[in-house]
Amino acid sequence: MGPGPSSANPRVLRAMSLPIIGYLDPAFFDLLDELSGMLGEIFRTDQHSFAVAGAGSAGMEAGLVSLASPGDTVIICSYGYFCERQIIMAERLGLNVVAIRTEWGKSMDPQVLADTLRDHPETQLVVGIHAETSAGTIQPIAEFARLAHESGALFMTDVVTSLAGCELEFDKWKLDFAYSGSQKCLAAPPGISPVALSERALSYIRNRPNPPSSWYLDLSLIADYWGPDHIAHHTAPVSMIYGLREAVAMALNETLEVRWKRHEANAAALRAGLEALNLELPISEKDRLDQLTVVKLPQGVDDVKLRKQLIEEYSIEVGRGLGEFAGEVVRIGLMGESCVPANVFALLNALEKILPEHGWEVAKGSAISAASAQLAESPSPLYSA
Amino acid sequence: MGPGPSSANPRVLRAMSLPIIGYLDPAFFDLLDELSGMLGEIFRTDQHSFAVAGAGSAGMEAGLVSLASPGDTVIICSYGYFCERQIIMAERLGLNVVAIRTEWGKSMDPQVLADTLRDHPETQLVVGIHAETSAGTIQPIAEFARLAHESGALFMTDVVTSLAGCELEFDKWKLDFAYSGSQKCLAAPPGISPVALSERALSYIRNRPNPPSSWYLDLSLIADYWGPDHIAHHTAPVSMIYGLREAVAMALNETLEVRWKRHEANAAALRAGLEALNLELPISEKDRLDQLTVVKLPQGVDDVKLRKQLIEEYSIEVGRGLGEFAGEVVRIGLMGESCVPANVFALLNALEKILPEHGWEVAKGSAISAASAQLAESPSPLYSA
Repeated sequence: MGPGPSSANPRVLRAMSLPIIGYLDPAFFDLLDELSGMLGEIFRTDQHSFAVAGAGSAGMEAGLVSLASPGDTVIICSYGYFCERQIIMAERLGLNVVAIRTEWGKSMDPQVLADTLRDHPETQLVVGIHAETSAGTIQPIAEFARLAHESGALFMTDVVTSLAGCELEFDKWKLDFAYSGSQKCLAAPPGISPVALSERALSYIRNRPNPPSSWYLDLSLIADYWGPDHIAHHTAPVSMIYGLREAVAMALNETLEVRWKRHEANAAALRAGLEALNLELPISEKDRLDQLTVVKLPQGVDDVKLRKQLIEEYSIEVGRGLGEFAGEVVRIGLMGESCVPANVFALLNALEKILPEHGWEVAKGSAISAASAQLAESPSPLYSA
Repeated sequence: MGPGPSSANPRVLRAMSLPIIGYLDPAFFDLLDELSGMLGEIFRTDQHSFAVAGAGSAGMEAGLVSLASPGDTVIICSYGYFCERQIIMAERLGLNVVAIRTEWGKSMDPQVLADTLRDHPETQLVVGIHAETSAGTIQPIAEFARLAHESGALFMTDVVTSLAGCELEFDKWKLDFAYSGSQKCLAAPPGISPVALSERALSYIRNRPNPPSSWYLDLSLIADYWGPDHIAHHTAPVSMIYGLREAVAMALNETLEVRWKRHEANAAALRAGLEALNLELPISEKDRLDQLTVVKLPQGVDDVKLRKQLIEEYSIEVGRGLGEFAGEVVRIGLMGESCVPANVFALLNALEKILPEHGWEVAKGSAISAASAQLAESPSPLYSA
């Protein structure tokens, strides 16, 4: 129940142990073709969808290195820890970074981006994270994308925590590049980054004067391997692709709409329980994520000790605060297979036992009752199939 | 039986399906510490050993981006397809590449490197592949490393196909960086790159004026995550690390010396069989690999048709010729779990049936007999435990 990796379904774990076949074997190409189409359904795109052979951060770096050239102006919207990682990467790559820094824990007003684009009409690429896992916020990326395109820029987004957990429409929102992780709401093991890429962005990469400085993360070479000609690039991570395929099949079987509602319902129950413990949820209703709930630590409750007790006594991992939120909050993930009532109840029960030891008094049973009452209102399945 | 991925043992495949735990969980740190030590035994180093979260090509790019800065002179010894990939990567990174190109299928005379270093005393990094999988050759990298150090340069090598398949001594040979793949002689699934790094090389990265342009592949950040402080970097590929640990444990249990001899013995049997089919093995005895045997296609034998028949009728994958060898040879891998007499016999039997259909006459039974006679001479186990 941390910010990820989340748990994987046994079906996905079993797929990880299938025998290895060659990455240039025609049977494996069939699997790539099938998975590419399925990822298109997950991203809601008819353009290019495939996977980068690395963590979500590899997807992040693949976008930055492929979609802009050294010296190009790149606007990075920053409202959390992973936005700051994008800035570090972009600066290392020699991009001319214009950072828009807004308050953590709030959604960014698109007008700030519009103003910055007016000051920087030369902008090649705009970057904004959809669901900021460090701050627990959802961001208006469809509006960011519209503004970027008006200015002639490409728009790239991080959907690591949002994909398959809440609404995301790659084509309808006219995104150019979106990268995700396998280990959050898709509930596959970590280590592969599903991505979607627009025709327009691919055309930019193919026609840029100098190729991306990274060969491994060049999105056009990876697209060529996943594309109809299956042009050899690096050796593909065969087992990770087996696991991802099974996880994506399970998500499509559940249907995205039901899966989003499952994340909504379980998160609402968790929040009801946390509020019954008199804990403060600092992110506003409008801006908060269902996949990741930020909870303020009350006065007197020790961050390190609390998390250590949860993992050692209850086998529950929750995330620490990062950056501006370090030591101030804990972050509770409800993603994919981990997003189920059993986990909500297990955590609330543990907190009810532990918090009084830190001097934070709670009314026994109130949290579980509140969560249970909230879950009773949900019209959709609360567990995945 | 292609150039990789090779087969994985069921124990390794089962490890891939273990439940996911967090990459910052103390229990996972224990696993990293243990695996790092085990990789040290495999590389024969007391310095730094860990794994890059990507294919062998990610290890390759991690070395090039970390161990030299744009504009630095890098000498790349090129005698095969993967050397040419290193050149492409280094040029994309803005390194000043001095390529030494020597004949494919032969080991390179170290004197050529000595001469080139004399012409380029400013050289920051020398790069040479240990076992060139495209050309089937072993190369005198200990001598390359000695010459590089005499000139004050670092030495980086590719041990993708050599690690755990033939002698490799990271510390004794004074290597600075060696990267490998999981899917060759270690016989784990592809997708993670075990590496070793010298103190000297790590110190260079920590003290270079500008950090590597890649954040994801910065070897110092990856070393910091695997090191005693376990400083968070990207999310680690948990399942791949489970699988790699099991594969490395199996290799250490067999012992490296016995494993090398197993590769020697099975390759000798394969070669005896191929020669009994009157096929030409173009790599000299001195230069050839045991892990990968290059076979010249006789006049009249169609490359594509032969490989298609092998995979469709016999479920045997062999590799095509790359680069200078395209259409001229096939490449037969005997690596890790795939390096067993059963595979030698299966392939020889298939070739004995197929080659006459291409007009290449063979004496029935001669290949199997020759291989069998050769295996009878081996003093060591021919299968892994």
